[in-house]
Amino acid sequence: MSSTGFSSLLSLARKLNNFYLLEYFTNSCLPFICEGVQVGLISSKVLKELQRFPSVFAISSNSVTFTPNLDNPQARNDALEETLLKLKSEDVFPALRGWRGECYVTRASSSGPELFKMERAGSVLFGVKSYGVHITGYVNHSSKGLCVWFQQRSKTKQTWPGMFDSFVGGGLTESYGVRETAIKEAGEEANVPEDLASNLKPVGVVSFLHESERGIQPDTEYVFDLELPEGFKPSNNDGEVEDFVLVPVKEIPDFICKENFKITSSAIALDWLIRHGIVTPENESYFAEIVELIHLPIHQLFQMKQR
Amino acid sequence: MSSTGFSSLLSLARKLNNFYLLEYFTNSCLPFICEGVQVGLISSKVLKELQRFPSVFAISSNSVTFTPNLDNPQARNDALEETLLKLKSEDVFPALRGWRGECYVTRASSSGPELFKMERAGSVLFGVKSYGVHITGYVNHSSKGLCVWFQQRSKTKQTWPGMFDSFVGGGLTESYGVRETAIKEAGEEANVPEDLASNLKPVGVVSFLHESERGIQPDTEYVFDLELPEGFKPSNNDGEVEDFVLVPVKEIPDFICKENFKITSSAIALDWLIRHGIVTPENESYFAEIVELIHLPIHQLFQMKQR
Repeated sequence: MSSTGFSSLLSLARKLNNFYLLEYFTNSCLPFICEGVQVGLISSKVLKELQRFPSVFAISSNSVTFTPNLDNPQARNDALEETLLKLKSEDVFPALRGWRGECYVTRASSSGPELFKMERAGSVLFGVKSYGVHITGYVNHSSKGLCVWFQQRSKTKQTWPGMFDSFVGGGLTESYGVRETAIKEAGEEANVPEDLASNLKPVGVVSFLHESERGIQPDTEYVFDLELPEGFKPSNNDGEVEDFVLVPVKEIPDFICKENFKITSSAIALDWLIRHGIVTPENESYFAEIVELIHLPIHQLFQMKQR
Repeated sequence: MSSTGFSSLLSLARKLNNFYLLEYFTNSCLPFICEGVQVGLISSKVLKELQRFPSVFAISSNSVTFTPNLDNPQARNDALEETLLKLKSEDVFPALRGWRGECYVTRASSSGPELFKMERAGSVLFGVKSYGVHITGYVNHSSKGLCVWFQQRSKTKQTWPGMFDSFVGGGLTESYGVRETAIKEAGEEANVPEDLASNLKPVGVVSFLHESERGIQPDTEYVFDLELPEGFKPSNNDGEVEDFVLVPVKEIPDFICKENFKITSSAIALDWLIRHGIVTPENESYFAEIVELIHLPIHQLFQMKQR
């Protein structure tokens, strides 16, 4: 129990949703609307900068939209890229220093038409929903018992350098499907061969609404489990990983609560610990609250904010 | 795809949350507050009847509380029982015909002190959070492949008679713990022997906000998986079950969408299909929305409504 009266795992799940719990209902942000659909959340700090681009954004007291002339995806994509490159060149937002050259696509709904796409690094400024995949690689070890592989991120990575993270993870961009992204990232980040990757088991999503110094992140991560043979040793192919560590399940709750664990990836570990019967209603008083907080109804919240 | 443009499983998850999606944000209900904590939601129909009990309930334009003299659990329990028995004798609410003689306990938080307890059948009138356990019993069948056992509820049961339901389920009442309730119900409902029940694996919760003709049901169900040997045939011990059926996984999505499947139990089956990799991001366009909707943040929503 921490001094807040919450358990350490509930405190973690609440920290993960700091924006939802502390800011979302205070109306400190304006909804970002495109074609009648709320697609993002814009803070007052970002709003101030967007006011300098009146040919791109129409700003009223209760929403931000694209200007009427930007009435199609291509026009919006071009305008967004130009705006973000300008802001990047001025170094206004630290988030844009992590420019990836990869775009997140925003759609009217999960299976709806594309509304626009935006450089990944810019998504936190507009609070647009981002999507990714995460893989928990685990081993039924003959001497150590059930263990989970975690990666330590490269110390030269633009975001969260050197921090501990899921076994494998990556953003879902315009070019690849969900399972396809998981297989690709498993090969690139951890050298998982295709025959092993074929055992990837989709087991759900985690969703949360986090705010960091970079911006607002309404995020949904597609979650995969991958049981690995004891003899498999992950190694990195793309320079994005510093190291891999194998952690016995009993140590994981403490491991993911440390400051050097990437907070947004703790949702994936929490979900795994719960689905695998390690964290239970018997050993965690706030079991239900935690399960709920790592599955925040992001897709509904956006629709409601619009009312 | 249905005529709404949603998939049939998304439509099911939305129907499960009909109150959350259609009523919750319209302020058609008053929060029910006890010791500064929102513990329920009261509809205008119920409010009208509660006005007849001014010594029990203090009703203002924005909340319902107990009267100041009911300042301890025992006094509240007695007043609630008297009120509910009176309403039952007048047959004002069909929900009270299902009187169980079992109480749901309401606490300030999951591990907080008891505020009051109330007959199970009355909980839907006050929209108090209810808790239960559900077990999905499944078999890796040698000829039929992966299959799940479902029960058909007794045709004489007070609630949802004759409908299909999870393998085993039961309300969490004041006398038993979570795992203890699951073991007890597995024995009573499906004749699961204790050595088999010891394999019960806690795997999470489902939470939703449903309204039926009985009332409002903010519900959290603790979910257990139980792999069963092919030779095990469930049989009923307590008269609450009509029959058991073994359904191959591919047939389950259609099975749970039928009108004769208890809607509030469909959340448990959906969660199982997702965790076991049957419903996937590849075969369900609204995968993320469905996962989110069966894990509604009930515990947070109650705190927010209060503001």
